[in-house]
Amino acid sequence: MKVYLDNAATTPMAPEVLDVITEAMKNHYGNPSSIHSHGREVRTLIEEARKSVAKHLNVTPAEIFFTSGGTEADNMVIRCSVEDLGIERIISSPIEHHAVLHTAEELAKKGKIQFDLVKLKADGHVDLVDLESLLKSSDKKTLVSLMHANNEIGNLLDLDAVAQLTQQYGALFHSDTVQTMGHYRFDLQETKVDFLAAAAHKFNGPKGVGFIYISNRNKLKPYITGGSQERNMRAGTENVYGILGLAKALDLAYASLDQKQEHIQGLKSYMMERLKAEVPGIKFNGDTEGRSLYTVLNVSFPPSAFSEMMLFKLDIEGISASGGSACSSGSDVGSHVLGAIGVEPGRANIRFSFSKYNTREEIDYVVAKLKEMHQA
Amino acid sequence: MKVYLDNAATTPMAPEVLDVITEAMKNHYGNPSSIHSHGREVRTLIEEARKSVAKHLNVTPAEIFFTSGGTEADNMVIRCSVEDLGIERIISSPIEHHAVLHTAEELAKKGKIQFDLVKLKADGHVDLVDLESLLKSSDKKTLVSLMHANNEIGNLLDLDAVAQLTQQYGALFHSDTVQTMGHYRFDLQETKVDFLAAAAHKFNGPKGVGFIYISNRNKLKPYITGGSQERNMRAGTENVYGILGLAKALDLAYASLDQKQEHIQGLKSYMMERLKAEVPGIKFNGDTEGRSLYTVLNVSFPPSAFSEMMLFKLDIEGISASGGSACSSGSDVGSHVLGAIGVEPGRANIRFSFSKYNTREEIDYVVAKLKEMHQA
Repeated sequence: MKVYLDNAATTPMAPEVLDVITEAMKNHYGNPSSIHSHGREVRTLIEEARKSVAKHLNVTPAEIFFTSGGTEADNMVIRCSVEDLGIERIISSPIEHHAVLHTAEELAKKGKIQFDLVKLKADGHVDLVDLESLLKSSDKKTLVSLMHANNEIGNLLDLDAVAQLTQQYGALFHSDTVQTMGHYRFDLQETKVDFLAAAAHKFNGPKGVGFIYISNRNKLKPYITGGSQERNMRAGTENVYGILGLAKALDLAYASLDQKQEHIQGLKSYMMERLKAEVPGIKFNGDTEGRSLYTVLNVSFPPSAFSEMMLFKLDIEGISASGGSACSSGSDVGSHVLGAIGVEPGRANIRFSFSKYNTREEIDYVVAKLKEMHQA
Repeated sequence: MKVYLDNAATTPMAPEVLDVITEAMKNHYGNPSSIHSHGREVRTLIEEARKSVAKHLNVTPAEIFFTSGGTEADNMVIRCSVEDLGIERIISSPIEHHAVLHTAEELAKKGKIQFDLVKLKADGHVDLVDLESLLKSSDKKTLVSLMHANNEIGNLLDLDAVAQLTQQYGALFHSDTVQTMGHYRFDLQETKVDFLAAAAHKFNGPKGVGFIYISNRNKLKPYITGGSQERNMRAGTENVYGILGLAKALDLAYASLDQKQEHIQGLKSYMMERLKAEVPGIKFNGDTEGRSLYTVLNVSFPPSAFSEMMLFKLDIEGISASGGSACSSGSDVGSHVLGAIGVEPGRANIRFSFSKYNTREEIDYVVAKLKEMHQA
């Protein structure tokens, strides 16, 4: 049996998305910047995709720019807000994605910003009291960059609370919503964030494409310069098929959001119950039973003969899960997220992450294998 | 009849490439950074793609990095060589692509570089004597950025001559090969360029993916930071399907290069002959009968009632061609390339660009329509 429980790393593409992409690759090859019919038909498709994405967020199409993914979008927000908006200080958290952390660290090292990290509470949530005192403590023009849901432990940020705090202190607010776009509803007229970053492959869309939301209250300049694509905000011939696939994937995600959420939350709760019943000493990392992303379950296993190689054992049994984020698994360092929340030594920490395509039968299989490992 | 003669803007995707992409979208959805089987199989595919691209250029796979396209690759070379290699001066030409020109202009405006433009000869070729005197004139660490073939007029640069000159004067050499990759053979052990930029959609591959060659003589840092993808050189989950499509497209391009070149060069020569016979006063922009890209023909039409709207007339007849590069057609300015080579006022200048899928029958149709317009 092959079981894919690493959907926070990337999701399988929805068949409906694949159909849209395949059709476009066959029939719509024009360059959207060309003024002839081959170009215009593609331009129309891209602008429809932009409108559709904007509608889901309750923003205008002019506030949505397509990128090569979430990482490029994070880079653009952080680097261009320092370059173009006079940002002198960035506040983030120690458990952000490396696209944010490494980028801000580089700017700090070059002396371009002051970089402050907000404290975390014992359950891994951002300490909003500390955030407020950081905001109060300086008159420097500040960008707060905090992810909506943590990709490893699933803790969910209260976007509205942070948006209100940042507004109150005249700071800008960027949220990396790579793990939540297509999984939660957004109304950006209600929730006043300045920037969002998203990636299609986290909501059953294609890899290599994402978008950035830039509120029309802020004017950035492009991070990638050249041609006048994306209304002069992102140069380079558009990833046409990727953009159409992204829009279709987001449509699908929101068309069945409630059923999807119920199904996946059901799988997560079921796995927690079954693990508690079958593996004595099991714990969960993060605020799993509180404000938590329904697609992610980070499990802390009691010490066993397999602690050091549990992921490999799972892999041999056909089960794909993760020890940290995929983006850092290539490098040989432990998870900076688990390090920051202070997990107990000697325990194996595994992230299981779910999609609408997973089933209870798969969870049963995985729990049975985990039980075996802990009986040995 | 629909005739697509704008292949310098973008090419139709080869059906074989479409098959590779579709198969990968269906069956290989893992994140290549994941260490489990779903990830490893995709990692293997990507590394095979990298090896294949490297082999075509006679370089090592460690010198090839996948990007979101040619524009990102150009940005990375120019910006990171200034940031990381101490480049203080950039020499380019007035007819480069905007991905190079606008990027260098921005750096010059910010005072980070001295930006010098090499003179052009009457036929639009870079004046290598002037290039040498520019190289001689300063001790500043210099990057020369000159495209292999001009995307509007098709003039071909002598890469070897420029590579030798830059080496002689201790400068680095970057070439935007977006118009020539897959259309000419490269042996980078013979031709010592430091950097190349390429985009898959110009050689019947997918949009939204390209690559940068960085010779192992030079160490850049990433332009997009975050995860450790592309051996820490380009963060962000890889555009897996795009990368596999790019490698397949390049394989196809080189597998039948001689036949393709003969076919397309034949179409170009045929169109020139037919136009000379049918439209009195016709001229060609650039060194069309000399060192010229076989896929591009830039035609200068004698003044007529349709001069101002020839592209629209062609479009109505189902013929897609271009007035400049697609990347600048969104903006309402004339071609900077034609401006720099000094075309005569009152004449319409149209770029026709060919692919292996075009036919003589299509050329006959286009020439007949052009003849009609010039008889009115």
